[in-house]
Amino acid sequence: MSARGRLYGVGVGPGDPELMTLKAARLLAAAPVVAYFCKQGQRGHARTIVEGFLAEGVVEEKLAYPMTIEVPAADAAYHAALTGFYDGSAQRLAGHLDAGRDVVVVSEGDPFFYGSFMPIFHRLAPRYETEVVAGVSGMAGCWTRARTPITYGDDVLTVLPATLDREALRHHLERADAAVIMKLGRNFAKVRAVLEELGLASRAVYVERGTMAGERILPLPPADFEGAPYFAILLVPGQGRLL
Amino acid sequence: MSARGRLYGVGVGPGDPELMTLKAARLLAAAPVVAYFCKQGQRGHARTIVEGFLAEGVVEEKLAYPMTIEVPAADAAYHAALTGFYDGSAQRLAGHLDAGRDVVVVSEGDPFFYGSFMPIFHRLAPRYETEVVAGVSGMAGCWTRARTPITYGDDVLTVLPATLDREALRHHLERADAAVIMKLGRNFAKVRAVLEELGLASRAVYVERGTMAGERILPLPPADFEGAPYFAILLVPGQGRLL
Repeated sequence: MSARGRLYGVGVGPGDPELMTLKAARLLAAAPVVAYFCKQGQRGHARTIVEGFLAEGVVEEKLAYPMTIEVPAADAAYHAALTGFYDGSAQRLAGHLDAGRDVVVVSEGDPFFYGSFMPIFHRLAPRYETEVVAGVSGMAGCWTRARTPITYGDDVLTVLPATLDREALRHHLERADAAVIMKLGRNFAKVRAVLEELGLASRAVYVERGTMAGERILPLPPADFEGAPYFAILLVPGQGRLL
Repeated sequence: MSARGRLYGVGVGPGDPELMTLKAARLLAAAPVVAYFCKQGQRGHARTIVEGFLAEGVVEEKLAYPMTIEVPAADAAYHAALTGFYDGSAQRLAGHLDAGRDVVVVSEGDPFFYGSFMPIFHRLAPRYETEVVAGVSGMAGCWTRARTPITYGDDVLTVLPATLDREALRHHLERADAAVIMKLGRNFAKVRAVLEELGLASRAVYVERGTMAGERILPLPPADFEGAPYFAILLVPGQGRLL
């Protein structure tokens, strides 16, 4: 009986392939199977990032979500469909592992920070030898490209999804020294209004596709701004002691 | 007149040298001057991480803090001494840049996330061509090694220093879905009491020297635990929807 393969969850960073870690590049070059999540009909950021790093003859496992991730997460049908999708994805990967093939699942950013790898980790780590490799987060790519240090000294940083309601957004933002607001998309106007109320609008920076082709970095756009993609983020840099 | 050198602020990741980015490794291999911060009489984590990545004949600029960083930051003498130290450090690096030599300043973790590079950035970026390179954060190294996904779905993550007072710690923790508490050191007992009050103690994980030699990962230690170093952290992982 041959040995079982090893599962790797590997962060590939925010977009620029050179922001991949040395370890990610080494594992990718040796991997017989590379898996990645993406939307239907697209290739996905993670697969784009690793182009040029894969071994010849690599088997690619494309795990295409059954629906957009912008559907309300509370919806029961959505939940059932996604759960089934992750079960099936884990099963596909387990087939390779059982046959003795190592599998590298690539994640944009860091695998354990809102990562697409987590549902696979929960399903397979109890059964297969599993290693997770940290990556540069998308938000770090964004604040670096915006040339904005995000936290100083004893600053509190809050990372929050724009999908929260106004009251929750206000609660979390009113005492944060620095903030990163993710998943903007159609929540932009709501978030912008809260930033205005709290006097934070002038500090906010808008970043889209940080470190990638088509990168856009702007001061906080006006309230009627349209077209913020789901993955665009707002940064509110800290103002901690300047030494 | 020769061209002036270029300044780089480069994140070198949480500790394991293989968690450095490809870009960091490339810049280090080509850098005529590498600068790093450290405590008096020590070499510092950042310099330890880049051992083996430096060019032959590299000039090293060791920037040793004039005092421990655990002195209360509100103290005026502390502030003046540190400001003078950063002024002098920037001047030393400017000498190299004026002579046409590129300078790479290495930062543990990410340069703009509580980074030692920030005071240099503020002083020199207005005068010299400057590029910042994002790195894997120390906290990402810690949650990965602890095998603990930190944020799911729409979780709010709060990153806060253990130096805050109890009331502020409680305010920030009571509605966070996930938290990273940094700079533990002698603040451990205070933080632990707040976690107990909020019912978070059973979820907390203690990490010291994540990804480095001497790494320690423990469930939340008892209240009389002593010897948490300044850089030890506590993780409170999110419990967001499991798919």
